Amino acid sequence: MEKIVIASASMTKFTDHYDKDIRHLASEVIASTTLPLNLSPKDIDALVIGSMASQLFTRQGNLGALIAQENYMYNASAFTVEAGEASGQAAVRAAYSLIKSGMHDYALVVGVEKVTDVLKLPKLQSIVGYVNMDSRYEVDMGLTLASMYAMMAKAHMKKFGTKREQIASVAVKNHFHGSLNPLAQYRNKLSVEKVLSSEIVASPLTLFDTCAAADGAAALLITTESKAKELTDEYVEIKASTLAHSPVRLADRENLYSIPSIKLAAEKAYEMANVTPDKIDVVEVHDSYTITEIIALEELGLFKRGEAGKATEEKQTYFNSSIPVNTSGGMKARGYPFGAAGVAQLVELYLQLLSKAGDRQVKDAELGLAQAVAGTGGTSVVHILSTV
Amino acid sequence: MEKIVIASASMTKFTDHYDKDIRHLASEVIASTTLPLNLSPKDIDALVIGSMASQLFTRQGNLGALIAQENYMYNASAFTVEAGEASGQAAVRAAYSLIKSGMHDYALVVGVEKVTDVLKLPKLQSIVGYVNMDSRYEVDMGLTLASMYAMMAKAHMKKFGTKREQIASVAVKNHFHGSLNPLAQYRNKLSVEKVLSSEIVASPLTLFDTCAAADGAAALLITTESKAKELTDEYVEIKASTLAHSPVRLADRENLYSIPSIKLAAEKAYEMANVTPDKIDVVEVHDSYTITEIIALEELGLFKRGEAGKATEEKQTYFNSSIPVNTSGGMKARGYPFGAAGVAQLVELYLQLLSKAGDRQVKDAELGLAQAVAGTGGTSVVHILSTV
Repeated sequence: MEKIVIASASMTKFTDHYDKDIRHLASEVIASTTLPLNLSPKDIDALVIGSMASQLFTRQGNLGALIAQENYMYNASAFTVEAGEASGQAAVRAAYSLIKSGMHDYALVVGVEKVTDVLKLPKLQSIVGYVNMDSRYEVDMGLTLASMYAMMAKAHMKKFGTKREQIASVAVKNHFHGSLNPLAQYRNKLSVEKVLSSEIVASPLTLFDTCAAADGAAALLITTESKAKELTDEYVEIKASTLAHSPVRLADRENLYSIPSIKLAAEKAYEMANVTPDKIDVVEVHDSYTITEIIALEELGLFKRGEAGKATEEKQTYFNSSIPVNTSGGMKARGYPFGAAGVAQLVELYLQLLSKAGDRQVKDAELGLAQAVAGTGGTSVVHILSTV
Repeated sequence: MEKIVIASASMTKFTDHYDKDIRHLASEVIASTTLPLNLSPKDIDALVIGSMASQLFTRQGNLGALIAQENYMYNASAFTVEAGEASGQAAVRAAYSLIKSGMHDYALVVGVEKVTDVLKLPKLQSIVGYVNMDSRYEVDMGLTLASMYAMMAKAHMKKFGTKREQIASVAVKNHFHGSLNPLAQYRNKLSVEKVLSSEIVASPLTLFDTCAAADGAAALLITTESKAKELTDEYVEIKASTLAHSPVRLADRENLYSIPSIKLAAEKAYEMANVTPDKIDVVEVHDSYTITEIIALEELGLFKRGEAGKATEEKQTYFNSSIPVNTSGGMKARGYPFGAAGVAQLVELYLQLLSKAGDRQVKDAELGLAQAVAGTGGTSVVHILSTV
């Protein structure tokens, strides 16, 4: 069976792009992903858009057709994949299947979100809730995503003795990585004290335990190894692409300190890639909240339950340490334009595995894992990439 | 290469389901599609949702996870595909690729839309516009989908001498077919006079040239022939699955009497299935407006340009005539719950090809074609099915 690979990858800076429509953000990464391979957008025969809520954020649906129009890609098969906050990586998986099926030669995945058209924070919060939570039994009952992650943080602290400072260390580490990434939204460093003393969003989580809104786009060109070789010497292999679920409703889970869908997707991914967690060199995980990263690292089997907080505090997850996590800066510092973020996680792994990650380069990275989640875990997607 | 088949298919009645949430509509067709094969939803490893605007209509995103939750399908890979009004058939195509790639054994496609939560017609119209048109350059400029199809009807009449009565004949024929379909929203017959004398929506189109809003769901189980054989003797083959685009903006087209994306998708489909248009026995086309069906029949090569109106008036497209079109009643009479409708088109072909279409059965139907479009043609999807 022929290898499926990523032959090109790029992203915009994640920030407030007040001057750009969603179509411009998408078109920018289509150009920056195809041009280095001397491909024209017209050569691309499949375009998969990962976008979480363009209909609500920007009053524009059918992004596939719109973005095809802007790039004259009338022969491409273009559609949008939505899976809440996991939309970006879910789109990667759909594109992977289009190549693996032999139906298409080149599948371009574009993760894109234009968020700053929605200026009011309460409206933004309610959109994120409606799209990722059970609207009827959670959002309409008054729950917010922040309040649920706050409960999960408390449960984790109680069950495992995880300390508040350990949770805050996630933000400190991801901002440090962001300071090394020219495309990151936030390049300032943070201290544990700064995180703890910032405004409380939902106790115990503060403002700096959360992500800010950002606009942005990221893209990957997925193809077969033989097609890639005609275009470039630089590509990475997609070894695994898996997706799984837990109950969307947090109240239906067995406990609050775990996210079963991450474990389920990860187990399938390790089996598909035929690797064990200890072989992974570089990791991008979902850090919509600091506690999310800690739970993710444990569900992925990279740390035992209850040990990821301590490991983070001990700097084991820095880019130059034993298990580099979110070397891009993560959603926290690189920025979090929902649908674009999952694709950007794979852009980071692509750069790391090709030794093109600059100041934050992980030494001898050969195997990378990316994980994204929707809401508190209704959907989880995992990808494992490797050098060839 | 193994055949990819539809091993089961079902739909709800398309109507106002005021008593049902979107999750209930979806769960109903999951049960009615899996139970006849003695499968449990838990046996299904991929769930592709086709939904046009659940975030806007029902304030609920990530339907994949929500519907997986309601049916305990935690191991399934579930996500939503959106391509405007073509979402249903675009979801079928994504599911087809999941099976063809070998990544999954059983892919369940669920097309679902809950529209009646949005009670006000102007709001419904603006949602349909935002999702299918170019929001910035069409909707925000004051255009509506109805006004654009009215211009297309006028252009067709001027270019080919198509008569107003011929266009109205589409509604008459589809209501006749609806009268034979127990699951159709409208089972009353119409006359040309009734269509012409009803309220003008956008001249020359009247109320009965358009579709009404409806709730509903439809589902297909897609698998390989060998897997299907383990479950049932009754299945049909997917011979072709194609998708193409025209400019979303009507103003960017060469003329107003054609929809290039339909022709593009159809040509690819005939090539993929290795058939010619004259071999097709039964057809389901997009008839969001009466004129849409006439243009679609011409773009599909089933009639020469300018001849579909006359053929419709001459009853050539009735279920017991030479080229049966929209035997289900079409969007006009069977009903049009956006994302569900494209899937329901394939449900109709499945029934026709297995000789299970009751009073509207087409004699000796062996090859069927379904076509759906988003807006005025930004996206078109075509499927060709055959008996095995």
